Amino acid sequence: MLGRVQHAAKLLKDVSHRTPIFTSRTVDAIAGCQIFFKCENLQRTGSFKFRGAFNALSQLTDGEREKGVVTHSSGNHGQAVAAAAQAMGGVPAVVVVPKDTPQVKVDAIAGYGAEVVLCEPSQKSRTETSEDIAERSGKILIPPYNHPDVMAGQGTIGLELLQEIPDLDGIVVPTSGGGMIAGIAAAARSIRPECRVFATEPTGKRLQESIAMGQRVAFPDIADAMLDTIADAIRTQPIGDVPWPLVLEHVDETVFTVDDDQIREAMHFAATRLKLVIEPAAATGLAAAFDGQIAAAISSGNGGGSSRTKKVAVVLCGGNVDPAVLASVLQ
Amino acid sequence: MLGRVQHAAKLLKDVSHRTPIFTSRTVDAIAGCQIFFKCENLQRTGSFKFRGAFNALSQLTDGEREKGVVTHSSGNHGQAVAAAAQAMGGVPAVVVVPKDTPQVKVDAIAGYGAEVVLCEPSQKSRTETSEDIAERSGKILIPPYNHPDVMAGQGTIGLELLQEIPDLDGIVVPTSGGGMIAGIAAAARSIRPECRVFATEPTGKRLQESIAMGQRVAFPDIADAMLDTIADAIRTQPIGDVPWPLVLEHVDETVFTVDDDQIREAMHFAATRLKLVIEPAAATGLAAAFDGQIAAAISSGNGGGSSRTKKVAVVLCGGNVDPAVLASVLQ
Repeated sequence: MLGRVQHAAKLLKDVSHRTPIFTSRTVDAIAGCQIFFKCENLQRTGSFKFRGAFNALSQLTDGEREKGVVTHSSGNHGQAVAAAAQAMGGVPAVVVVPKDTPQVKVDAIAGYGAEVVLCEPSQKSRTETSEDIAERSGKILIPPYNHPDVMAGQGTIGLELLQEIPDLDGIVVPTSGGGMIAGIAAAARSIRPECRVFATEPTGKRLQESIAMGQRVAFPDIADAMLDTIADAIRTQPIGDVPWPLVLEHVDETVFTVDDDQIREAMHFAATRLKLVIEPAAATGLAAAFDGQIAAAISSGNGGGSSRTKKVAVVLCGGNVDPAVLASVLQ
Repeated sequence: MLGRVQHAAKLLKDVSHRTPIFTSRTVDAIAGCQIFFKCENLQRTGSFKFRGAFNALSQLTDGEREKGVVTHSSGNHGQAVAAAAQAMGGVPAVVVVPKDTPQVKVDAIAGYGAEVVLCEPSQKSRTETSEDIAERSGKILIPPYNHPDVMAGQGTIGLELLQEIPDLDGIVVPTSGGGMIAGIAAAARSIRPECRVFATEPTGKRLQESIAMGQRVAFPDIADAMLDTIADAIRTQPIGDVPWPLVLEHVDETVFTVDDDQIREAMHFAATRLKLVIEPAAATGLAAAFDGQIAAAISSGNGGGSSRTKKVAVVLCGGNVDPAVLASVLQ
């Protein structure tokens, strides 16, 4: 995977933003370790998804590009595919979107020139609708996470982090289908095996149980309906089968679980103190820092070792939040 | 002034943030020129004021530092002096604050360990209260703009901009007492005389008239009461007498005037599209870009010259906005 990620980094070099990494003394004091925020909310299209989408589209043949692409997405991957298709000179793109997606994301997808098709808010409807379009039109399916080129694109976040902070002790990654964390973990741990990679999840995802069992389990009660969480970008319950082996191999056993109240509090802090708008999914890492989960995990295991302050990157994966949700968080 | 600014840059090097400069294709398309956002909302204490405050405090003798400092501020300069005093190892600081200042700013000042003294919301009360404290206690008065070392500190923004964008055509600076624009203009135009520096102002300030008359006029009807604007950080009406000569010499005759509705719209755009929280004062430059004032001014005068797209920096001076105000802008 490292080779694929390095190749993706070359393709993305002049197209995606090398997002800034910010620090905050106040956050460090609360978190009990040194936190580095990787600002993918400042990435093109407002989330990390542009990396994977552009990398996947870059691998298509000329004939495939002519027919175009189709994807399904709760919003961010849809914007990313639409923007990547536009950036490649107008590849036709269809985006299947669950009906309950925030309007701001639907508008953005259409704004990049893609055709929007609505579906039911379930994993099943998303998959079926997009597969049906692919079959009928010959368009190439670009899934949001279950694809090695998508994973490799997201993995470039890990490369950039270790280039700028070579002695990083950990990376915290909001996790839904698992594409981003698989790409980051595989790349980062190939470069620096002692760097641990942690997933964050909203309450109800039960990734911790899944990892502990060593099995990619889709819990029957929540497998089709999406998770009930404010974090609309990470509502997928099971990890995809393509990223899963990398998650099992490289991701830490400790998963950081946070609830909606913690997410709202972290969003409020980001807006008022960091001056950054982050979406609920992105706030999960900050929330885990605030309640001590990161410090507890990073100082345990691996024998403890040196007593220097641990350095942990938190991926602020996106900033595409419905203005009404952000307003409610601020009040 | 350039020498003073360069000296300030050395003192600030390891203490203040070299704030990032962001661009946005969407903004450029609307503005009709290339806009570079200088993100002082991401500066320590959430505004550019830290630069001037730290530079001014750095010039004090050991004896003066022991007695401490006093200032008056509608918030941002107060936070800056408090934080600078703390960063210098605990210089005692008193901050005189108008009673109507957003609570979030008052809390932040106290959070940096300074003593807060409330006064009436008028220029007169601010000045008198702080001068009285200085006289009684022997503390050194650090005014918010009417001071060469404060101006020199703010001027480092101009240095950083021209280091990163050497062919810059213009810099747009939100203007209140005039300390920031005087420092930036004097420094930037010493390095690159063809770079024009523009002030933004909220409706009612009438800086345009003042510059046209070539006289620093305090309009009697609004000279003591502060301007009625959502932009609480730039409510001072007349430019200070210390920055004034530099403003008259270096600042463009065209002043960009914007009203509260334009400011609110620009704040909404910054939060939802740029993912940046900016305070109302900082939104004045973006508002001027959106309604075409910047493109009109930068393409006129100076003979026009080359036909390449003009490059204009907009200083996002701060991000310290009351959460309730930001929430109202988002709805």
